[in-house]
Amino acid sequence: MSVSIAVDAMGGDRAPGEIVRGAVLGAKEYSDVNLILVGDQRLIEGELCSSETKNIAPEAKKRIGIHHAGEVIQMGESPALALRKKKDASIRRAAELMAKGEAECVISAGNTGAAVAAFTLLLKPLPKVLRPGIAVSFPAGKSVCTVIDVGANIQCKPIHLFQYAIMASVFSHYIFGVENPKVGLLNIGAEVAKGTEVLKQAHELLSRSNLNFVGNVEGNDIHTGNCNVIVCDGFVGNVMLKLSEGLSFHILDTIEKALEAEHPEALEDIRAELDILRRRNDYSEYGGAPLLGVDGLAIICHGSSDRRAMRNAVRVAREFSKFQVNKHIVAELASFDT
Amino acid sequence: MSVSIAVDAMGGDRAPGEIVRGAVLGAKEYSDVNLILVGDQRLIEGELCSSETKNIAPEAKKRIGIHHAGEVIQMGESPALALRKKKDASIRRAAELMAKGEAECVISAGNTGAAVAAFTLLLKPLPKVLRPGIAVSFPAGKSVCTVIDVGANIQCKPIHLFQYAIMASVFSHYIFGVENPKVGLLNIGAEVAKGTEVLKQAHELLSRSNLNFVGNVEGNDIHTGNCNVIVCDGFVGNVMLKLSEGLSFHILDTIEKALEAEHPEALEDIRAELDILRRRNDYSEYGGAPLLGVDGLAIICHGSSDRRAMRNAVRVAREFSKFQVNKHIVAELASFDT
Repeated sequence: MSVSIAVDAMGGDRAPGEIVRGAVLGAKEYSDVNLILVGDQRLIEGELCSSETKNIAPEAKKRIGIHHAGEVIQMGESPALALRKKKDASIRRAAELMAKGEAECVISAGNTGAAVAAFTLLLKPLPKVLRPGIAVSFPAGKSVCTVIDVGANIQCKPIHLFQYAIMASVFSHYIFGVENPKVGLLNIGAEVAKGTEVLKQAHELLSRSNLNFVGNVEGNDIHTGNCNVIVCDGFVGNVMLKLSEGLSFHILDTIEKALEAEHPEALEDIRAELDILRRRNDYSEYGGAPLLGVDGLAIICHGSSDRRAMRNAVRVAREFSKFQVNKHIVAELASFDT
Repeated sequence: MSVSIAVDAMGGDRAPGEIVRGAVLGAKEYSDVNLILVGDQRLIEGELCSSETKNIAPEAKKRIGIHHAGEVIQMGESPALALRKKKDASIRRAAELMAKGEAECVISAGNTGAAVAAFTLLLKPLPKVLRPGIAVSFPAGKSVCTVIDVGANIQCKPIHLFQYAIMASVFSHYIFGVENPKVGLLNIGAEVAKGTEVLKQAHELLSRSNLNFVGNVEGNDIHTGNCNVIVCDGFVGNVMLKLSEGLSFHILDTIEKALEAEHPEALEDIRAELDILRRRNDYSEYGGAPLLGVDGLAIICHGSSDRRAMRNAVRVAREFSKFQVNKHIVAELASFDT
């Protein structure tokens, strides 16, 4: 069984160069991946002929196609407006390929708002799913912590949070191999009575379920390893994501500058640790952020994605399909009778 | 004009030792401060006779009093329950002193939830204030950024957010000397149309005001210096506070361990930078977190507060009183006719 993956070749700060190269790396690595590069045909062909990608084996070449799209939504554009105006935008065309069943997965590192809007507009939710949610994964202790939602749904009902817990638990299990993922509800204290009415009701739903619910958790638990899944509304999730990224960057940058002049050898020696810390917030390590709950697989990558990030996204897309994660999500949701 | 400050001598991980010592340091430094140490009389007297505090000049000694309270609310206790049960708790007695006008300020490093509950229960709001908010200040670029609210009010109306902006602007101006503080509204993107209905309405109120409103800002702006005041609801603010603290600790700890064994000299040389980074999240640097909007001044300090933190809190309490910050807050609120 092969997997067809549509890649928005024009989306991202380093598109199309790094996007095409990374996607091609993925196609070379996995002989069951069919790639559809969506975007400006001439530019994509140029990239495929570049020194780094031209030596593709004929076998792999057969599995790489181009789907032309004449427009691009830029990073700074208003998502809703741009999507309405640019009917031939690469992200829209890529999502359409999935909606029509011509691709099982779509990956984009472009304008995040436009990607989320295109996916939610064009893709059907899975049966019983009320709101799809974006899941971002971080290293946490010796394991991985998946935070859902980080921006698709900024005002959640208790049932939305409950469904996020189910979907992310399935994802964590099949993609990261976590047995019985520990689920935490993001709150401002451990006590059951903490937080808004929505959170109290979500707490009750989670407590009554057979999920491995560990109760309320706090902001710092993303990094402690106390849980594998953290459930929150998309507003708080998005704020956390940006704060983590900005704060880490600032701290690491300050330390590098402090060591650079007087202690270059020390800096070199701890470079590996610094890189690990830097990548904590780089969710491309985990193949980007999937929009869980849609029929198919939509993966949102960071705007700064390079070839490594795209190759990781291709790998996760393939595993998601191989392990039939959506089928398991549907079965779990049905068993909870939500 | 002297300033009377009630200190919850029993609150905090290092109470009563460090709390009493720090408060006494403040009283020694400022000859117009009258200190009321609230808590177990015998324990406090013991601390006052310790080697570090016994050499208090007679002049200063006259300005240090003890108000006995027989109970303590521990850090892990449920705030609401503990406050109801422990009528003679030190935090409650300290708040009562202020409510009765016997102190102009109360400082506590104890159970935060209990402190907020005691203050909101016992202290009157200032005229026109709908909800008091906790303000926490961080170093930001070359200036200071004050985030309000970080936990007093987890479901805000637009008018609450608007009042927070006014109160924190006055605070930033008088306590940190910021001319015309730049005010940002925490959101998940810069566009006006971003966020919940509450945020959109708050955006409009702020835009129409004569505050120095710079528009929507994001999580990472706490540290960039783009604004001096960030307004958010207490849920998001609290999550940010804990995430910042946990993440910074983790990163700095990892780097220290990486350098320790092989490059102790490099570690020593960047120690000053590491300490500055560590203190970014230590709001005791700025004298604790005031609950703005109550009649008087209630300062919440971090549970880990040491003598330096307490001395800073005494200093800020004194300045708050000297500069008549509450009088300015009342005048500003009145001028906006909210």
